[in-house]
Amino acid sequence: MKYNGNKVEDIKIAYVGGGSRGWAWGLMSDLVSADDISGEVRLYDIDREAADHNVIIGNKFNKAEGAKSTWTYRATDTLGEALEGANFVVISILPGTFDEMESDVHTPEKYGIYQSVGDTSGPGGVVRALRAIPMFEVIAKGIQKHCPNAWVINYTNPMTMLVRTLYRVFPGIKAFGCCHEVFGTQKLLAAIVKDRYGIENIQRDEIKVEVTGVNHFTWLTAAKYRDMDLFPLYAEYAKKHVNIGFAIPGSKDENWMNNAFACQHCVKFDLFNRFGAIAAAGDRHLAEFCEGKWYLASPEQVRERHFGLTPVSWRKKDLQNRLEKSRKRLSGEETVALRPTGEDGVNQIRALLGLHTMVTNVNLPNVGQIPNLPLGAVVETNAVFTSDTVTPVMAGELPTAIYPLIARVVAEQEQVVEAAMTRDLDLAFRAFANDPLVTVDLPTARQLFDEMIENTKTYLQDYDI
Amino acid sequence: MKYNGNKVEDIKIAYVGGGSRGWAWGLMSDLVSADDISGEVRLYDIDREAADHNVIIGNKFNKAEGAKSTWTYRATDTLGEALEGANFVVISILPGTFDEMESDVHTPEKYGIYQSVGDTSGPGGVVRALRAIPMFEVIAKGIQKHCPNAWVINYTNPMTMLVRTLYRVFPGIKAFGCCHEVFGTQKLLAAIVKDRYGIENIQRDEIKVEVTGVNHFTWLTAAKYRDMDLFPLYAEYAKKHVNIGFAIPGSKDENWMNNAFACQHCVKFDLFNRFGAIAAAGDRHLAEFCEGKWYLASPEQVRERHFGLTPVSWRKKDLQNRLEKSRKRLSGEETVALRPTGEDGVNQIRALLGLHTMVTNVNLPNVGQIPNLPLGAVVETNAVFTSDTVTPVMAGELPTAIYPLIARVVAEQEQVVEAAMTRDLDLAFRAFANDPLVTVDLPTARQLFDEMIENTKTYLQDYDI
Amino acid sequence: MKYNGNKVEDIKIAYVGGGSRGWAWGLMSDLVSADDISGEVRLYDIDREAADHNVIIGNKFNKAEGAKSTWTYRATDTLGEALEGANFVVISILPGTFDEMESDVHTPEKYGIYQSVGDTSGPGGVVRALRAIPMFEVIAKGIQKHCPNAWVINYTNPMTMLVRTLYRVFPGIKAFGCCHEVFGTQKLLAAIVKDRYGIENIQRDEIKVEVTGVNHFTWLTAAKYRDMDLFPLYAEYAKKHVNIGFAIPGSKDENWMNNAFACQHCVKFDLFNRFGAIAAAGDRHLAEFCEGKWYLASPEQVRERHFGLTPVSWRKKDLQNRLEKSRKRLSGEETVALRPTGEDGVNQIRALLGLHTMVTNVNLPNVGQIPNLPLGAVVETNAVFTSDTVTPVMAGELPTAIYPLIARVVAEQEQVVEAAMTRDLDLAFRAFANDPLVTVDLPTARQLFDEMIENTKTYLQDYDI
Amino acid sequence: MKYNGNKVEDIKIAYVGGGSRGWAWGLMSDLVSADDISGEVRLYDIDREAADHNVIIGNKFNKAEGAKSTWTYRATDTLGEALEGANFVVISILPGTFDEMESDVHTPEKYGIYQSVGDTSGPGGVVRALRAIPMFEVIAKGIQKHCPNAWVINYTNPMTMLVRTLYRVFPGIKAFGCCHEVFGTQKLLAAIVKDRYGIENIQRDEIKVEVTGVNHFTWLTAAKYRDMDLFPLYAEYAKKHVNIGFAIPGSKDENWMNNAFACQHCVKFDLFNRFGAIAAAGDRHLAEFCEGKWYLASPEQVRERHFGLTPVSWRKKDLQNRLEKSRKRLSGEETVALRPTGEDGVNQIRALLGLHTMVTNVNLPNVGQIPNLPLGAVVETNAVFTSDTVTPVMAGELPTAIYPLIARVVAEQEQVVEAAMTRDLDLAFRAFANDPLVTVDLPTARQLFDEMIENTKTYLQDYDI
Repeated sequence: MKYNGNKVEDIKIAYVGGGSRGWAWGLMSDLVSADDISGEVRLYDIDREAADHNVIIGNKFNKAEGAKSTWTYRATDTLGEALEGANFVVISILPGTFDEMESDVHTPEKYGIYQSVGDTSGPGGVVRALRAIPMFEVIAKGIQKHCPNAWVINYTNPMTMLVRTLYRVFPGIKAFGCCHEVFGTQKLLAAIVKDRYGIENIQRDEIKVEVTGVNHFTWLTAAKYRDMDLFPLYAEYAKKHVNIGFAIPGSKDENWMNNAFACQHCVKFDLFNRFGAIAAAGDRHLAEFCEGKWYLASPEQVRERHFGLTPVSWRKKDLQNRLEKSRKRLSGEETVALRPTGEDGVNQIRALLGLHTMVTNVNLPNVGQIPNLPLGAVVETNAVFTSDTVTPVMAGELPTAIYPLIARVVAEQEQVVEAAMTRDLDLAFRAFANDPLVTVDLPTARQLFDEMIENTKTYLQDYDI
Repeated sequence: MKYNGNKVEDIKIAYVGGGSRGWAWGLMSDLVSADDISGEVRLYDIDREAADHNVIIGNKFNKAEGAKSTWTYRATDTLGEALEGANFVVISILPGTFDEMESDVHTPEKYGIYQSVGDTSGPGGVVRALRAIPMFEVIAKGIQKHCPNAWVINYTNPMTMLVRTLYRVFPGIKAFGCCHEVFGTQKLLAAIVKDRYGIENIQRDEIKVEVTGVNHFTWLTAAKYRDMDLFPLYAEYAKKHVNIGFAIPGSKDENWMNNAFACQHCVKFDLFNRFGAIAAAGDRHLAEFCEGKWYLASPEQVRERHFGLTPVSWRKKDLQNRLEKSRKRLSGEETVALRPTGEDGVNQIRALLGLHTMVTNVNLPNVGQIPNLPLGAVVETNAVFTSDTVTPVMAGELPTAIYPLIARVVAEQEQVVEAAMTRDLDLAFRAFANDPLVTVDLPTARQLFDEMIENTKTYLQDYDI
Repeated sequence: MKYNGNKVEDIKIAYVGGGSRGWAWGLMSDLVSADDISGEVRLYDIDREAADHNVIIGNKFNKAEGAKSTWTYRATDTLGEALEGANFVVISILPGTFDEMESDVHTPEKYGIYQSVGDTSGPGGVVRALRAIPMFEVIAKGIQKHCPNAWVINYTNPMTMLVRTLYRVFPGIKAFGCCHEVFGTQKLLAAIVKDRYGIENIQRDEIKVEVTGVNHFTWLTAAKYRDMDLFPLYAEYAKKHVNIGFAIPGSKDENWMNNAFACQHCVKFDLFNRFGAIAAAGDRHLAEFCEGKWYLASPEQVRERHFGLTPVSWRKKDLQNRLEKSRKRLSGEETVALRPTGEDGVNQIRALLGLHTMVTNVNLPNVGQIPNLPLGAVVETNAVFTSDTVTPVMAGELPTAIYPLIARVVAEQEQVVEAAMTRDLDLAFRAFANDPLVTVDLPTARQLFDEMIENTKTYLQDYDI
Repeated sequence: MKYNGNKVEDIKIAYVGGGSRGWAWGLMSDLVSADDISGEVRLYDIDREAADHNVIIGNKFNKAEGAKSTWTYRATDTLGEALEGANFVVISILPGTFDEMESDVHTPEKYGIYQSVGDTSGPGGVVRALRAIPMFEVIAKGIQKHCPNAWVINYTNPMTMLVRTLYRVFPGIKAFGCCHEVFGTQKLLAAIVKDRYGIENIQRDEIKVEVTGVNHFTWLTAAKYRDMDLFPLYAEYAKKHVNIGFAIPGSKDENWMNNAFACQHCVKFDLFNRFGAIAAAGDRHLAEFCEGKWYLASPEQVRERHFGLTPVSWRKKDLQNRLEKSRKRLSGEETVALRPTGEDGVNQIRALLGLHTMVTNVNLPNVGQIPNLPLGAVVETNAVFTSDTVTPVMAGELPTAIYPLIARVVAEQEQVVEAAMTRDLDLAFRAFANDPLVTVDLPTARQLFDEMIENTKTYLQDYDI
């Protein structure tokens, strides 16, 4: 890596899960859209062919219209080769296959337990963590060996537990977790301001928010536009729209019934009415952290709340679409075009290189930014990104009303990480059984747990099953 | 108050709720059983006649066989008169009547919500707190005015919220809350040691316990007998007896189906199996702090768990019995006899006078004895009692598994106290609606809340209903 | 205040101490240099004529070459009139006159105690605080009454204690303290990078620093330029230059012997050699927080360390120069010209209006940004400024080596504020006597204290002297 | 170890430093004075002959008049043999010889630095720690291997740093440090009560104290006798006796000039006048934690303050006396007699066995008992001793006035332990140079440090000197 005037050259980025047909392309697009950084991207994937394909597609991005910088792409045989001497590491993997995810999400349905996503919390999140944490142990050790000074950006779920794992294995790691869910709530707030006051073209980052909590169960304790406090306005909309929903005009929300990711924010509004703070993630995620009978008692209740369950069958079909897209891009049937992802990743990299300073929300171990949560637990708050530094902004004590909600999640996640790192399924079960989505009694919960473990055992070979 | 050799004379005790036909007699018995303290007890009660009767009964205790000291009893017209210059204040009142309590406990049943006690947590606990907190504000102000240096012992429920109120009104108060529920678990442990090892005659205070949590939802993080760690033994019994129960031989537990206070510890064992720590209160109390569907889904489920719901009709009948007992004691039909209550109260008073040092569990504001709970919140841990001093013993951080359970209770109680002190029923409702026993949706919860408030409005005259 | 496109109009700024012949002019210059804000500045000063003069000078700034906005200036009869409805309040006053300051700084010299500044710490800082705190109580009450939502920027020393006073009087105040001392250390670091690597034109804010501590005794726990960690480099210079000094080329440092504010950083280097962290303020300030015999044992020792004592005689003469400058500006003999002050004030105001986001160091109550210092104490760390919000960035625990140094200062300042607010000179003396510059025994310390109090008693009329 | 009714038999005690001619005999006396414990004492000492002699003397204690129990004594060849399966470990060693101690205490005198004890803090304490910590690493590892469940009682100085070392090497250790210095202050308070009110025969443990701080620099934040607050009384005596001293009638204090351990409490009184809290250790210890010029500027100043410097020559002579006493006891010229040591050790052992519960002051890692000191640092507070448990009592936040004093000591000690455990003499020097007794500049401090290290290098063979 070297500085040349105001540009940085020879940056080395290792991409773990570099065969991805989604995130990888977005990153490529964002990288060539920046004019002050360039270098090499090493793509490592257990599906080597997918990585090779992305080398070809990466090169096409270099030549796309509007590209301002050039990046070298290289697929590597080993994780270590990708990591060696890297300045940045991006982690975006699928822990297991969609078959395992199918069990995570749908096995509990036999027991009356519905999950809208199933990758973060609830039975599915716990079991996914048991698979993913050993993988992240390997990655963390690789980073410690090959590039201990690299900055590590994780996009993989369950975000919190995986970032926690990185730090537990290699305490000196410089890692953070990145997620765009908060942005959606900023857009909702902008839409509400427009709806109410007719102010057009408010950018989502003009909505200034104080972020606290844990990933996918993040909350805003303040939201402002210019000198305007948005809480009273939101309270008004929460009361009015809690049953009928509110769709951001022109967004996928309008068509929530046919979209696996959209919602009309009824869960968000109900949570505001209950707790007086703004929950800031998609309703599908939020619902999974609450009492099972509040929003996920049945598919009917989910529909009444104007959001959707995301079946894994949809993900499987979507993957087929993305594979087809990959084929077309490789063959040239489809050209690659630069489209800003709206993700912060590349801007975060630029900030870490000292090219600018930025403040955004991010997942980091708690060093006191939320004083009433346990130290070391991974939390999501704002942070300042600047030269080789990410420093959390004080989020302050969680307000009394939401503190126990977040504290519960943290405690469950701390137990699951401990359980996975010690390969202790009994401890994992203890956390599993007390998850609020697990609305069955202890013996039934054990039966469900055992069944889910059985379904995913290919990826639990270190455990004593 | 003056010291005379190793005795202390002229002690002034104010008894708020001094017309009691239960606690008061126990205290009288314990007082005359101590040979190194004597003085005056002022009995204040809104039922003046009841206080007058207790003056007579108190004098009978002075002459009971085995009495070692003499106390002067005096009924007072006003609270202030009782408190003036008092060295100790005992508070044991019923906030409202059993008619109000009947609504607290039984109105929620129409909505499928069952409560086994209904005076601490759950809908009944919240509404009782709304009644009682304004009363305790008056008492706290009286103490600040008439006897700011007195030690104040509260026995009234909801214990935690009422002790919290005393400190919020008069931060310099020297108050603590006293409860014997932990003793029952020590007795259970002693019975288990006997059952397993045949060791006879273990006294409950030979079972050394580390106590943490909040009143009626206290937990043991360690339990020892001599050099024996009792956790593995308890784990064995929890597994074996979780469904069939375990009765302390010779205790009321054996007859739990006909006793409104007994249980066979199935809830306690299930909680151990879930969380790995020993919950230390009667099952009737413990159940009320858990998810509504765990132990209190229906009267049938309660029976399966071998404990009982305590109907207020029982309390009303019991009161008749006690009134009859009072009548007989006044008339001389029945003589008073000294019977140790097993309560710590009088020994605590003796310790505060410097006559000995003792360690026991007690309810006090958190000054860091449980570092991962909010400062100021009232918690139950061990404490050292000595000359004019009660100092909490470090309970340490709550273990990860139970931390969120207790944190939730604390947050709810903090909100209810704030709501009651600001007479803010909407805030009270927010806490109420998120209580885990309130297993109905938000609009239904509001309907229940409003109905319960209506039923108790005689005692909520300061609120804007 | 109203938003008009990307501009904000009708901003109301109250300037307490608005007759100033220094800070006021700098602020005027910075205000008209910004093109997106405009409004009114109310000048309040106990010297009404000085305020009137600044109205005239302010109008001249509106017409200066390069002025991009226009501000209305108005002198007010009362503090309340200046504050009424203000959006921002700037406080920059002299507590007492230079005669009182002369006693603060020079009376201790009779006892062998030398102070290089005497307005922050040491005997002079304590006594100045006793004068200033009652004045700030008045200002805080005025803000609470007339403009409780205003943002308050304090520039007055002793900075920490005065900001603390504002919050103690009016806990809801939105106040912070602003100081440029850290900037000087950023410039030093830039000069060292240039000296060593020949990199030209590094701006001071390209040196990214993590700031911690208290005002005038701030420390850097990290300093970076691009991807370069500046600590090893600084260590090298600290070793080499601790005796010979290092002057920023072209700066006043080169002529330190004739400049009351310059230094050659020998104290800073010695502190680095002692503690391994970079002290980030002028050496004149730093020396006053250390053991009296380390750097301030005698004027000779001060000269050996290449910094200077700032005599109050110099300040008196400088004031004459500034009065003369004022006269010339009023008469038109001298024209006003825009010169950037390098202060952050106006940019902070713009950020608080939502016009941009910035990160800079600032003095705020500790809400946990330095977890091992007492909550509530005012500390200096980085903070994020954005819409109606200043949020501290986590500084983290103070490193073990410097923690006790800062903890001592905080404890002294907390005691002095308490002493001043309760008008308790005995408590003030306790803090005074244990200040490390007070190298005399307890009875002698009392004698000095009494003499200093006597000299300043005109401004201590509320105290019982 | 086995329980037999209310007695415990077959207790195994390992005594590290078991050749001692002082502590060991006291322990023997206290052990046979207890009627409910018995077992074996293994004596390990690098001076094997001394251990052998103590076996003989131990057997004589078994037969002394009044002995109530019998103990088997055994000298062991190795540390491991002594520790194997031990229930209790007592550590009381001299790290190095009195020749090394002579350098610790007296080398600094050449630089104008006087130390009254030189084994805890100041230059001597630091260098002694560098020698002792590697020894304690060996002991801690031995305990972890041979008796991980044993209770470990350390009597060796520097107490705090050595207990800290035990926990850093073996975090699961059950160790505490025992010191009787606080008892002396309880006796002083009893004497003052007697002097003022004529109350006779107050036992030292009837003076109830709240203890906080670090060993040898402990403070009382409350002191009570019955219902009497002793602070106002102490304030009166501190004012009156600060220059003339106060000797406990009948104690060695009266003859302080000829006694290496006595004092007349002038330092204690001056500290009270400065800080408003009662320092609770001998003046010789207290003085060493304060600014070097306060009490230890010169031998003359020491005399003025009515305490003494303890020269190592005295210790050497005293050792000769004790060797002679040993010889006489072995030969039978002198008989052994039971004399209560006044130490808590044997009673603590009895409490840990569940034979009683006691509250006393003890040195333990901070788990929050002093919330404003760093977690993990070893602090001295009250603690409850009961079945297999030592739990600290909340000492609460250190008062503002004394907080920075203790914080400084903790920081220095943490740095020295870190330095010793990493064998980093530069880090050790950093702590050394900033000790308040080191009143010389940085280069001179380095010269002194190097000289002291040279003198003790026989015991620093692991370090890179």
